[in-house]
Amino acid sequence: MTMAKGSQPFPRSEYLRRLTAVKAEMKLREIEVLVVTTPANITYLSGYTSKSGYVPQGLVVSLKDEEPTFITRRMDGPAAIHQMFIDRGNVIGYPEALIANPERDGYDAIIEFILDKGVGRKAIGLEAKFLPALTVAKFKSRAAESKIVDCTNAVTWIRGLKSDLEIALMREAAAISDAGMLKAKDVIRSGVREADASAEIIAALVRGANGKPGTDVASFYLCATPRTSTCHIRWTEDVFQQGSQINLELSGVRHGYTSPLMRTFSIGKPSDKIRRLHEGEVAGLEAALAAAKTGRTCSDVAVAFNTTLKKHGFEKESRCGYAVGIDWTEPTASLKEGDMTVLRPNMTFHLMLGNWIDEDTGYVISETFRVTDAGGEPFTEVPRELFVL
Amino acid sequence: MTMAKGSQPFPRSEYLRRLTAVKAEMKLREIEVLVVTTPANITYLSGYTSKSGYVPQGLVVSLKDEEPTFITRRMDGPAAIHQMFIDRGNVIGYPEALIANPERDGYDAIIEFILDKGVGRKAIGLEAKFLPALTVAKFKSRAAESKIVDCTNAVTWIRGLKSDLEIALMREAAAISDAGMLKAKDVIRSGVREADASAEIIAALVRGANGKPGTDVASFYLCATPRTSTCHIRWTEDVFQQGSQINLELSGVRHGYTSPLMRTFSIGKPSDKIRRLHEGEVAGLEAALAAAKTGRTCSDVAVAFNTTLKKHGFEKESRCGYAVGIDWTEPTASLKEGDMTVLRPNMTFHLMLGNWIDEDTGYVISETFRVTDAGGEPFTEVPRELFVL
Repeated sequence: MTMAKGSQPFPRSEYLRRLTAVKAEMKLREIEVLVVTTPANITYLSGYTSKSGYVPQGLVVSLKDEEPTFITRRMDGPAAIHQMFIDRGNVIGYPEALIANPERDGYDAIIEFILDKGVGRKAIGLEAKFLPALTVAKFKSRAAESKIVDCTNAVTWIRGLKSDLEIALMREAAAISDAGMLKAKDVIRSGVREADASAEIIAALVRGANGKPGTDVASFYLCATPRTSTCHIRWTEDVFQQGSQINLELSGVRHGYTSPLMRTFSIGKPSDKIRRLHEGEVAGLEAALAAAKTGRTCSDVAVAFNTTLKKHGFEKESRCGYAVGIDWTEPTASLKEGDMTVLRPNMTFHLMLGNWIDEDTGYVISETFRVTDAGGEPFTEVPRELFVL
Repeated sequence: MTMAKGSQPFPRSEYLRRLTAVKAEMKLREIEVLVVTTPANITYLSGYTSKSGYVPQGLVVSLKDEEPTFITRRMDGPAAIHQMFIDRGNVIGYPEALIANPERDGYDAIIEFILDKGVGRKAIGLEAKFLPALTVAKFKSRAAESKIVDCTNAVTWIRGLKSDLEIALMREAAAISDAGMLKAKDVIRSGVREADASAEIIAALVRGANGKPGTDVASFYLCATPRTSTCHIRWTEDVFQQGSQINLELSGVRHGYTSPLMRTFSIGKPSDKIRRLHEGEVAGLEAALAAAKTGRTCSDVAVAFNTTLKKHGFEKESRCGYAVGIDWTEPTASLKEGDMTVLRPNMTFHLMLGNWIDEDTGYVISETFRVTDAGGEPFTEVPRELFVL
């Protein structure tokens, strides 16, 4: 008996569609072979979500082959066979001797595979910006005949435009985000430890919603008084008090896809300043969604938010959001003034309106949406409230 | 009012001790300034555990200054002031304009800080192996007068030898690992979804043990029938069945410190093969711990395990473990044949005996231990059983 294919989140035709788009981009850039190493891009092109990316691995897309080939540590091969849409023969496990070996590592196995394919003088694409310097140098010296072309974010830009099948998964993730936020509303109260509330909320994110469990734990931030000006801490051992404010950022996950969501909670009456900030931010959120129409730009969305917030007497220094999907942030389009990326239907963004004004004041609200002809359509349903508990 | 210091997991003297060791290494390598960018090394030298490492940040250790300086995105400054032992004046926030900007990023802010310090022709150390090629190139071109020296793992090797204060935190993490594993024993049963069991176990890891909550969610793997030959998947939507085998890997976390633990569960009677493998692995585990004495080598520990397992009719391809501490794996010493690292008291390892023999057979057991003169002393107390549920 051998490892069987698991149930796949997408049909084979969906992966082939994505690969066709990647190969068209490769032809445009005159690249014969593309080595995909960013875990989210590997997920996108194969369905693989196993967490083996802490050692070298690469999905090799070749113009010659319909399916890509995955080269990974041998012990991770069975998970790849199980999760990926590709034929088991296209999963190649490299030996354990390449782990914790200062002379040779998994990238050598990838290079040797490409050389064996006879790439010759044709060009090899790498996601070079995210690779260690020594790895890029190794490709250049070992595949000396070939031209090495930086293709950082080439797949990521393609990934930015979701199919309806992907949107459906992001909606499932959003339903889980909603369930997590509603759980927070239930469990956050005076006298409860931050950690114990977090345990309940995270468990809700794993249990999922509508019979569909979360498939992973995404990043989770609970920044409560006196830490409301922080944005990326988990939680502490402190106990919530009457008067505590809690800023929460979380996301459900479905087969890699996320739909992040942020809300602010107050145990007892919030300060006037926070109340006014909330009103300005909600108005800004609505203005931003209205502006997020097909044909407008990322910059237009940011201008709509910033102008509205300013009318309410506040400003936000950081960008208003970013492209979102597999493994949360896509490092491509930003909702910020000056980003002239044109919005197309089914682009998805985390409209991230966290605003850490000074060391005393932070407030968060956000929604994940898709672009439509009529504006941004949010995936989550939690009310746009400053929750007073 | 400004952001106050939070409660610190270590006294200032402990951080200064660590910095003294780092500076001694810098002098040996004739480096004036070391830029620490690995998140675990930043935690080690400052107490910072906020998750801001997805954008550029660096802890700059200079021979001239007692305290290091942390250069981070401005919005992450308050968390650094709160968590780090250093003076608030040594936290420098760079502006939001350096985010999602193809021309300049946070590394430019770090380089400018170093140039302003007047490093001149002296050497700058980088953890180059983990930095993108373009970042290393930027240091070389912008600090053209200075020599750039690769110091990858220099701090990590120092980190390998724990203080008693660190061991105490790892014991707290281990108590949480124990609690998580005992929770697994309670909740894994026929008819339960993998995801629902995972939700309960992860919640237990966050709630913690002995009044000390987990401070983060570490990586978590639940690989159940028919996926027992996989090692790095989270969980699935499947329901446990009579006859299911479950391989579990988890860890509690205390202020960054982990103590990983693995156990195998069987719902109903396990196969004879798994039973025999379990016996061989437990015998090997005991032999490895006995060998893990001060003055012996990593290789000796691996030989002890491998020889014992072979006597039981099995082999394990992958290494028997690795140095462990903040953020799980330390990429330095490996428990494998040929690694001649000499064991010293309070080195800590994850004796990782997961054995994925073929596509049908995988079994896991592991313990995290410290080296003593009398052998490896495990931190966890869960029995070395193949749990039959």
